Amino acid sequence: MSSGRQRAAVIGLGSMGYGMAQSLMRGQFEVVGCNISPEAVERLKEEGGLGAASPAEAAEGADVVVCVVVNAEQTEHVLFGPGGAAVTMRPGAVFMSAATMDPESSRSLAARLEATGRYYLDAPISGGPAKAASGQMTIMASGTPQAFKASDAALNAMAGTIYRLGDAAGPASAFKMINQLLAGVHIAVASEAMAFAAQQGLDLAKVYEVITGSAGNSWMFENRMPHVVSGDYHPLSAIEIFVKDLGIVQDMSRAARFPTPLAGAALQMYLAAAGAGMGKDADASVARVYANMAGVTLPFTNATRKKK
Amino acid sequence: MSSGRQRAAVIGLGSMGYGMAQSLMRGQFEVVGCNISPEAVERLKEEGGLGAASPAEAAEGADVVVCVVVNAEQTEHVLFGPGGAAVTMRPGAVFMSAATMDPESSRSLAARLEATGRYYLDAPISGGPAKAASGQMTIMASGTPQAFKASDAALNAMAGTIYRLGDAAGPASAFKMINQLLAGVHIAVASEAMAFAAQQGLDLAKVYEVITGSAGNSWMFENRMPHVVSGDYHPLSAIEIFVKDLGIVQDMSRAARFPTPLAGAALQMYLAAAGAGMGKDADASVARVYANMAGVTLPFTNATRKKK
Repeated sequence: MSSGRQRAAVIGLGSMGYGMAQSLMRGQFEVVGCNISPEAVERLKEEGGLGAASPAEAAEGADVVVCVVVNAEQTEHVLFGPGGAAVTMRPGAVFMSAATMDPESSRSLAARLEATGRYYLDAPISGGPAKAASGQMTIMASGTPQAFKASDAALNAMAGTIYRLGDAAGPASAFKMINQLLAGVHIAVASEAMAFAAQQGLDLAKVYEVITGSAGNSWMFENRMPHVVSGDYHPLSAIEIFVKDLGIVQDMSRAARFPTPLAGAALQMYLAAAGAGMGKDADASVARVYANMAGVTLPFTNATRKKK
Repeated sequence: MSSGRQRAAVIGLGSMGYGMAQSLMRGQFEVVGCNISPEAVERLKEEGGLGAASPAEAAEGADVVVCVVVNAEQTEHVLFGPGGAAVTMRPGAVFMSAATMDPESSRSLAARLEATGRYYLDAPISGGPAKAASGQMTIMASGTPQAFKASDAALNAMAGTIYRLGDAAGPASAFKMINQLLAGVHIAVASEAMAFAAQQGLDLAKVYEVITGSAGNSWMFENRMPHVVSGDYHPLSAIEIFVKDLGIVQDMSRAARFPTPLAGAALQMYLAAAGAGMGKDADASVARVYANMAGVTLPFTNATRKKK
């Protein structure tokens, strides 16, 4: 590259991936975007990025390939499917995998890629779209020293907080799954508590005020329960995300012969919400499932997906 | 009283009640203490308080009777049992009930007492012994305007935060139960997550660091999980507290025909802990139940009750 700038491919330009691409551009990376629907790629090009038609094309000549898809299956497809990135990545380049997945999948994908002389950083993310766009999100990362070294500039461009969690792929994904177990249960129990409070005749705005100032508070209660108070279920994060993530927790739980009764009970509530047609609504829609089961009336304004 | 000071009776000088008595003395109340075991009464007298042998004796001439016992049954006994306070309280005095109980019990006790011309403030507490002693705890209160007026000086002496939650007994207890539902589930799921993290081979101190900085955090995770990291289960709050409180939640749930599957699953874990002999250990001992079920080793130093 005549510019001498590092080049980053970003595969998956959803609300997180697009923001990460913007943060990389701000960090002086040359950024190539690739996405299933072309609109996000066109938008990125208008902001000074490049576009590619396949992961293979995007990864060609890249120093860093940042993969921001939904799960292990999609990540495998991006790497090893038709038009996959693994073939065109130059030896010594690094693949940063942001999708939430079980640690065994991380280890397996890393082993396959590293056998070909490329590096793999297990790098799940959190913090939401706004922090992704401002370069302030959190990245939980584990990988070989070489994978970390090759990812260093990109990590600094994208993250406000970087947790270094081990010298191989796997632990970072495990930390993320532990976080998702807690987050998923916290949203479900917050929903249980709010709907029960409504059944008991309590004022929900007052419940929000008292609980957020008390020992029963959680990050998720504080962040998600305004949906229930206002009755507006526009999704920031949808029910289906926790159908997926608590599903992974259950798979891990079964494989390890480790019982997780609370995560299991919470998963059933997300399944009930999805089954009732709320899969794309805000995850706090679990409260509506409780209300429907018990004949309780909650505030409701709407639940349609916001235009991006 | 020649001093012109208000007089408060404090029934139940446990770790919360004793601190509340100290805060009332600091607030210029003349304080009479009453407790099942005499040591706490003797200690209060050394600090300038008075002692009484029964609730009836303590309540005689009191402007405010603060009752800090464990549950509705004990509260009823303090009011209406042999040597109970209801008979000797002067008309116009107020009974402030701090025990955690279901709202129906609060309404019933208030109705019985108020029929005799005394006032009843439904006034559950939170914040722990240190805040009780410094006059900084939280009081969730509901009751008639007269009950609030008669409690005003005592509330200000004891609480840093006072939530005014309605003009009759009942709602304050309901708010407290909603808080306990969340708190009980949060400790149980924190225990589930920490023990699962140990099974996955993660460093628990690092899990604590990552989760307390992430969206999976809760007030209880942050407050209780140091027990699991260090392996020291000295009780600040014991397993039996949540056997009791989630038991009340289940009673309310059954009476209301309102399903609470997460609170129900958490209760089973506290029962498992109590059944395994950990009833008086720290509530984070639920993590040891998970570890025992799955053959996982957690740090363990001890679990004996600290000398007071």
